[in-house]
Amino acid sequence: MNISTAALAKMDQRYRATLINSLPGFKCLQLVGTMGKNGHSNLGIFNSIFHLGASPALLGMVSRPDSGDHDTLKNIENSGFYTLNNVLVDYYEQAHQTSARYTNGRSEFVECGFTEFFMPEFEAPFVAEATIKIAMELKEIIPISLNNTNLVIGEIKHILVSEELVGADGYVDHEKAGTITVVGLDSYFDTLPLARLAYAKPDVVSKLIK
Amino acid sequence: MNISTAALAKMDQRYRATLINSLPGFKCLQLVGTMGKNGHSNLGIFNSIFHLGASPALLGMVSRPDSGDHDTLKNIENSGFYTLNNVLVDYYEQAHQTSARYTNGRSEFVECGFTEFFMPEFEAPFVAEATIKIAMELKEIIPISLNNTNLVIGEIKHILVSEELVGADGYVDHEKAGTITVVGLDSYFDTLPLARLAYAKPDVVSKLIK
Repeated sequence: MNISTAALAKMDQRYRATLINSLPGFKCLQLVGTMGKNGHSNLGIFNSIFHLGASPALLGMVSRPDSGDHDTLKNIENSGFYTLNNVLVDYYEQAHQTSARYTNGRSEFVECGFTEFFMPEFEAPFVAEATIKIAMELKEIIPISLNNTNLVIGEIKHILVSEELVGADGYVDHEKAGTITVVGLDSYFDTLPLARLAYAKPDVVSKLIK
Repeated sequence: MNISTAALAKMDQRYRATLINSLPGFKCLQLVGTMGKNGHSNLGIFNSIFHLGASPALLGMVSRPDSGDHDTLKNIENSGFYTLNNVLVDYYEQAHQTSARYTNGRSEFVECGFTEFFMPEFEAPFVAEATIKIAMELKEIIPISLNNTNLVIGEIKHILVSEELVGADGYVDHEKAGTITVVGLDSYFDTLPLARLAYAKPDVVSKLIK
């Protein structure tokens, strides 16, 4: 079938949100940890993390004004720092639960059963249970006037990861790390490795790495 | 171990690129089809697609000046249109091969063994083999001065998909569609469903959908 822009505009709002959110496929999933001015920690689940560049090491994410992202964005703006923490098979139900709208003063760390972890001289809280923890410094917030969202761009300040998860060429082993992925806002997936392919060159059949 | 910004800056460039590209986890993978002024089609693989909003239906992606993305960006700027096509288990090696730097006049459709598919009154080529095809109209290109990349934001004009892949609530079934995911630039993964979880509410244990 062909679903046009006009058909999208006429759709029930929930149906359209589910369709469009799930349409592009598997997404990068992270728990974002922040600290409020009041000393209350906040933890939110984000599925719009994207790689922006390796030098400097930049990651972007989308913050929606009409969602639970509001506290996360406010804390990032105020403090300038946040953490990214991978979501594991072991606790994806708890991670999903951080998307519930808890009232102010209730931390998703406590409510959803995660342990706060701090590193010296970095104020945002990490998820102790995560096997890959990334400390981020805010670099730029780009308002997207098309739909009133914000792109949050940060630089990687620290990567906390076990040595056994990083290969000789720098490749991070997410299978070993237990990282999962998501479709839409609610459908979680484990993964099965197919292959790593060598850098592609014209007229050369693709080769496997290792 | 703790890898700091200072350590990242001192790293071998390739090691850092592999580390940072693979760090955030599983990414959204699409083949981007465009048409050049000269009538030559172009197909490139992108792993930086992100959901920006459902109403209007907007998707973003990152275009890097120092990569094969150059032709894709130029064609999108010139024509205003492009297509997104999901990558299947059946042809991920061919999809990876589109990242090779073919000289002008050689289309990745031909070189990598994909079939061009056109819909009436839409000039950008789709990948016939893809089970989910999305027609996009360029809305905005946002230059990121932090690292000289561009964010390409487009609106969904058409979704070409079999009815059996879309659920009663609008959910697109990527398992049935055969869609795969990627870590970094070269490591491809099939997926295994864990669960769909209902909209999270405070103090309610997460429920399964279906």
